[in-house]
Amino acid sequence: MRLLLLGFGTVGQGLAELLLQKTSILKEKYGLDLQVVGIADMLKGSITNTAGIDLSAAIDKIKNGKLLTELGGAFGGSALAMVESVNADMMVEMTYTDIKSGEPATSHIRAALKKGMHVTTTNKGPMALFYHDLAKLAKANKAKFFYEGTVMSGTPLLNLIRETLAGCQVIEIKGILNGTTNYILTRMEEGMSYEAALKQAQELGYAEAVPDADVLGWDALAKVTILANTVFGADRKPGDFPCKGITEITSSAISDARSRGKRFKLIGRVWREGDQVKGSVNPQEVDLSHPLAGIMGATNAVTITTDAMGEVTIIGPGAGRIQTGYSALVDIIAAGGAR
Amino acid sequence: MRLLLLGFGTVGQGLAELLLQKTSILKEKYGLDLQVVGIADMLKGSITNTAGIDLSAAIDKIKNGKLLTELGGAFGGSALAMVESVNADMMVEMTYTDIKSGEPATSHIRAALKKGMHVTTTNKGPMALFYHDLAKLAKANKAKFFYEGTVMSGTPLLNLIRETLAGCQVIEIKGILNGTTNYILTRMEEGMSYEAALKQAQELGYAEAVPDADVLGWDALAKVTILANTVFGADRKPGDFPCKGITEITSSAISDARSRGKRFKLIGRVWREGDQVKGSVNPQEVDLSHPLAGIMGATNAVTITTDAMGEVTIIGPGAGRIQTGYSALVDIIAAGGAR
Repeated sequence: MRLLLLGFGTVGQGLAELLLQKTSILKEKYGLDLQVVGIADMLKGSITNTAGIDLSAAIDKIKNGKLLTELGGAFGGSALAMVESVNADMMVEMTYTDIKSGEPATSHIRAALKKGMHVTTTNKGPMALFYHDLAKLAKANKAKFFYEGTVMSGTPLLNLIRETLAGCQVIEIKGILNGTTNYILTRMEEGMSYEAALKQAQELGYAEAVPDADVLGWDALAKVTILANTVFGADRKPGDFPCKGITEITSSAISDARSRGKRFKLIGRVWREGDQVKGSVNPQEVDLSHPLAGIMGATNAVTITTDAMGEVTIIGPGAGRIQTGYSALVDIIAAGGAR
Repeated sequence: MRLLLLGFGTVGQGLAELLLQKTSILKEKYGLDLQVVGIADMLKGSITNTAGIDLSAAIDKIKNGKLLTELGGAFGGSALAMVESVNADMMVEMTYTDIKSGEPATSHIRAALKKGMHVTTTNKGPMALFYHDLAKLAKANKAKFFYEGTVMSGTPLLNLIRETLAGCQVIEIKGILNGTTNYILTRMEEGMSYEAALKQAQELGYAEAVPDADVLGWDALAKVTILANTVFGADRKPGDFPCKGITEITSSAISDARSRGKRFKLIGRVWREGDQVKGSVNPQEVDLSHPLAGIMGATNAVTITTDAMGEVTIIGPGAGRIQTGYSALVDIIAAGGAR
């Protein structure tokens, strides 16, 4: 099975490490012999090799601040041109998320699906904006289209619902979908100011220099939209749902809540109301005895309410180099492996 | 797809209700047209119908204290004879659990697999005692063999590990695997005596008249053994692992733990130590800040530690008529459905 990797940042490198570590188990347990025949990265260089790129050497180059093109096989065109011109069985889309346009990732995915390539993406942009178009395109071209990493990184929320809760009707999904804000709220409850907690989150690599996507709730909103469209069958855009972040939560509001046995959490929620699918992101005071109250730091947690099973909660990492890389790996196994 | 249901107690009836509720979604979403061609129950009667048994009428009979045989199509022989003589595509084994012999369930499963029938079971006996034999038999006869309901009922722990954490190496599984003892410990922390809490658990149908399997830890031990054998690839028997229940935990020990920020939980655990797979069941003082400490009442929760994903925790019902029935349904979809 030949793979194209689009994006070789932290997630792409995490996936490459996993592919190296898991070569024998992939072969023995799932019958998968994987070869990366192309890597495209705007900053780190783009290369192809029909005999398979040496991933260990590729990781070494990046670690030493070098370009991938030093390995030979330089590819002159854009990532899109690589998808269009290189033959592969599956594309892994891991470029940066642009939640407003969904580009360039959406064009990459369209091009791959049109060629009948299977696709997995960790990119929230295309999923929050164009999921139904892409799913239709996949179907028309008999390609498989997976996206486990777009919500809760490798913690298997979407596959859990699709595969292991198959046949259940999902009534509500509710939880902590953004680790950065949860980390900030945790530190604030311990007495840190918002500014200091944000700074620490930035130093740890949880929050970006411009932290708006996290602290204003947009990242959680993208995930709420993805859940509404993929699990509930809605056709909505992020702007259709009310969204409020954590920037107005003061330290005194947090200690006041604490004195009443409550804890602030930024809660993303999707639910049915009659025929309508509703969604929201906002800070809520959660009772300390509720499972979501105990989720501290950068962990994510989601409670799924279904007709047959009542409440099932899944807790796990919501980000991380290896963890998000793993989401792509489990989708590769689902696309090509004999389980 | 023709089904045989062995056992028509609470779980069998729960499955029948789900099959009725979900007829159209099973057909439309998974392409499954299911017919129950035989039901065998020692107390409620055994019937067959090659055109499909009317499940609604079957449930009505039982609710009104009647026998299934009033529906016609009485089957004179044993459940085993039904498996051997009636043609079906999948058998659902839901008879009572005998953890010492695994019978009669093991014989039912062997007979079905030998005929190439797919099997799903909610029965811990065969799984804790003869898993590898049965898995081999399934493979030799090209039959699928599933058992989601044997641990955490329909909460998808086993499918989560097999499907959505595919490719991960599992390092440890640890959690609350028995709802009855968790319920008793929860009530005791609220001030009830062990005897009163046990009595309440019995009145609610959580604990049986002879509560040994729950309170002495045997039920959790069976699940630990199933996890050791299926997930960790060990070949062990329940007696191979140390097991201690909750009968020696006093109310004063519980309040003493509480004063130190701890809470007693009956913890089942499986882990690797070098080449060895270890397992244990015993009451442990869990820190109140740990996710497992917050699991109260009859809920189950398990934390899975893997190489790629770190800790992933799943929380959900550990028992229940519909919930355990659902575990069989999701396995039927996995065996026959086009997902």
